[in-house]
Amino acid sequence: MTPFLGEFIGTGMLILLGQTVVSNVVLQQSKGHNSGWIVISFGWAMAVFVGVYCATPSSKAHLNPAITLSFAMIGKIPWSIVPAYIAAQFLGAMAGSLVAWLCFRPHFAPTADANLKLAVFCTIPAIRSPFDNLMTELIATFVLVFGALFIASPGSSLGALDALPVSLLVLGIGLGPGGPTGYAINPARDLGPRIMHALLPVAGKRDSDWAYAWIPVAGPVLGGLIAAFLYKMLG
Amino acid sequence: MTPFLGEFIGTGMLILLGQTVVSNVVLQQSKGHNSGWIVISFGWAMAVFVGVYCATPSSKAHLNPAITLSFAMIGKIPWSIVPAYIAAQFLGAMAGSLVAWLCFRPHFAPTADANLKLAVFCTIPAIRSPFDNLMTELIATFVLVFGALFIASPGSSLGALDALPVSLLVLGIGLGPGGPTGYAINPARDLGPRIMHALLPVAGKRDSDWAYAWIPVAGPVLGGLIAAFLYKMLG
Amino acid sequence: MTPFLGEFIGTGMLILLGQTVVSNVVLQQSKGHNSGWIVISFGWAMAVFVGVYCATPSSKAHLNPAITLSFAMIGKIPWSIVPAYIAAQFLGAMAGSLVAWLCFRPHFAPTADANLKLAVFCTIPAIRSPFDNLMTELIATFVLVFGALFIASPGSSLGALDALPVSLLVLGIGLGPGGPTGYAINPARDLGPRIMHALLPVAGKRDSDWAYAWIPVAGPVLGGLIAAFLYKMLG
Amino acid sequence: MTPFLGEFIGTGMLILLGQTVVSNVVLQQSKGHNSGWIVISFGWAMAVFVGVYCATPSSKAHLNPAITLSFAMIGKIPWSIVPAYIAAQFLGAMAGSLVAWLCFRPHFAPTADANLKLAVFCTIPAIRSPFDNLMTELIATFVLVFGALFIASPGSSLGALDALPVSLLVLGIGLGPGGPTGYAINPARDLGPRIMHALLPVAGKRDSDWAYAWIPVAGPVLGGLIAAFLYKMLG
Repeated sequence: MTPFLGEFIGTGMLILLGQTVVSNVVLQQSKGHNSGWIVISFGWAMAVFVGVYCATPSSKAHLNPAITLSFAMIGKIPWSIVPAYIAAQFLGAMAGSLVAWLCFRPHFAPTADANLKLAVFCTIPAIRSPFDNLMTELIATFVLVFGALFIASPGSSLGALDALPVSLLVLGIGLGPGGPTGYAINPARDLGPRIMHALLPVAGKRDSDWAYAWIPVAGPVLGGLIAAFLYKMLG
Repeated sequence: MTPFLGEFIGTGMLILLGQTVVSNVVLQQSKGHNSGWIVISFGWAMAVFVGVYCATPSSKAHLNPAITLSFAMIGKIPWSIVPAYIAAQFLGAMAGSLVAWLCFRPHFAPTADANLKLAVFCTIPAIRSPFDNLMTELIATFVLVFGALFIASPGSSLGALDALPVSLLVLGIGLGPGGPTGYAINPARDLGPRIMHALLPVAGKRDSDWAYAWIPVAGPVLGGLIAAFLYKMLG
Repeated sequence: MTPFLGEFIGTGMLILLGQTVVSNVVLQQSKGHNSGWIVISFGWAMAVFVGVYCATPSSKAHLNPAITLSFAMIGKIPWSIVPAYIAAQFLGAMAGSLVAWLCFRPHFAPTADANLKLAVFCTIPAIRSPFDNLMTELIATFVLVFGALFIASPGSSLGALDALPVSLLVLGIGLGPGGPTGYAINPARDLGPRIMHALLPVAGKRDSDWAYAWIPVAGPVLGGLIAAFLYKMLG
Repeated sequence: MTPFLGEFIGTGMLILLGQTVVSNVVLQQSKGHNSGWIVISFGWAMAVFVGVYCATPSSKAHLNPAITLSFAMIGKIPWSIVPAYIAAQFLGAMAGSLVAWLCFRPHFAPTADANLKLAVFCTIPAIRSPFDNLMTELIATFVLVFGALFIASPGSSLGALDALPVSLLVLGIGLGPGGPTGYAINPARDLGPRIMHALLPVAGKRDSDWAYAWIPVAGPVLGGLIAAFLYKMLG
């Protein structure tokens, strides 16, 4: 398996499990309907856990362009592998999103609110305020990348078992700083499924909220870079 | 202890703990009545954890014919052990289901809705749609078998401790793709207790919904085989 | 530290954390009031985790006469240490119960229902039916002792880290078979705090329900012995 | 990285994640609004997990003056490092509190109840009763420091991986003894953000409840010292 395939599969599993947990909570008639934030947060955490496990043997299990760019910026990975990583992450996210939609297909028609159907695919801020939303995504992704650097550091890294601390890190982010924007913290996680929302014949869908789409890309990239530089400076 | 006994005991513990958590949430007057999807998902995840721990010293802790068939198909286990494994899994599931019913016996009579009493034993889809339900079970079991292959692979496997990553994988499946059908993801888990529902003197029970019974068998088998072939192809 | 002190401290921490989680959920005006079965189940699981960690360096961290008796019956521990273990478990449970009561003292007066105040200390079945309640406690403790024997077996045991799998086992029991009776699964856990309920000046308390008190003693002991004999037979 | 920086960063991450989880649950229009005590307890537990992971390579990851003082009192760390540890803990808590406030800034104005805005930063007892509140904080911190001493002891400690048992210990404390006062169990965690509540332009804030401020300082220090002496005596 190549690193490209590792990132593709890992990000695919991440989005398949993550998008389905949101579907389970927000779509009508699902068995987990309205089961709350604890389900959302644990669902995404376990999505990361499984994604990292499946990617680890062949790639570094970034599953997130914000991590890949940040790690490259401080020399932790060579720039040469960045394009393949990021392409695989977006394609994997789109593939996972497609399968997640298939998994919940009959639940879209009974759900009246088109905002909820969009929320299945990508993030919508609780209070729309571009600067604040950018700040929240920046802070949440700072925590992700900063924490991931400590977890992946020599002496602490457990290889495939890094999946557990990284998933607990994402659990903490979801429970806390994830509240205002729904924590994209990953450009591929938000933009990939947003594109799928636009492309797929989702029953009764609204537009894909392109005006917001740049924030869950820019916020995570900025937050990741700040985290990486700070980590590097601390030495 | 023989592999047969390992699978029998492990699947028995799995169903005992899993069927009781559904009983706890859906049956009247239980202390966990209406405690939600987070309880269901964690309950089944811990059921897997305990089942794998108890089976591991003597069998490979599949506890699931979809896993056994898939692993045999790609040569991970010899076909010669498949019949004993699958027989043990079904018998274990039936035994566990019996004990779980005994554990909650006084709570069946006060529960008026016969669908809830059936739901204690086996899965009922949230929206009945055979093709979609089959697809959901296929996808959810794909995630299970694909993830389990990575967790059980040389270099990642932790022996008895594989119980933890496998249970977290099942937690993720329950929280996400488990929503539309209630995630059988295991022919023995669904059909074994369904047979017990038919045989046992459950107070005020309905029929055992045999029209649906093939889906939580066929979906998991298909999903498992696709996962195993893909894993094999990736090499 | 002697084994007696290890069992005393470990069981004390177990009851301190377990009794407080019930207090948090059932007593009026607590910040966790009505936070549900997931809080109860995780609270007792973490109580076991901490109790085992604190006991492990000096005792075998049974914290439960049903475990001690079962393990002695099959020769896993010598009978000579049983009296000290069981005495320490009961005394530790009583001490932990006292501290837990102090911790929530101002919340008893505002709680009108005297049954809830008793439920803080010891178990009350959801549906009173002695034979069924005994059966439920027997089954739940069977799972505990049977699982614990696998976790503590040579080749699987992790020493102090056994705290994690044992606490997840108790999480699974709480979520599932714990529903009908509130899972004493431990004579010291139920009888020790029940005695404290009788002795302490709990504001507005009812009687200590002595008619039920034998069930959470006899059920766990029987379930534990059956589990140990079965494990031995499989041996 | 110096120990000072380790404690500063670790405590900063702790408060950033912990204060945001409270914000998520209590502030209006957050996606996790009213998601309950299980979210609060897991949020703070994961906050500890991440904080310990980030501090471990350079400091002993106390993140809490009650731990630092207790460990110094029994000779586990030299007194010479105490001032830097405690200064870093308070400054880190204040920095983390600032970032957490930025992360949820637009959610303060729509929240009418000024008590909830204060509760984001620091603890408010459920029932105001100084002696009882002090006792609760003392007991909860006793559990924290006593448990941490066993987890950090030679033969049990896992280095960076101590983050997991310590976070589960804090989960157990939050679920149980944390109910009456909201478990400061750490002078820096309560007083640092309380000062920030006074300094920051929080929309529609009340006073910072200075009358209560000494309890979440004195209770944790007393509870920690008692735990440390008892641990030492047990020897």
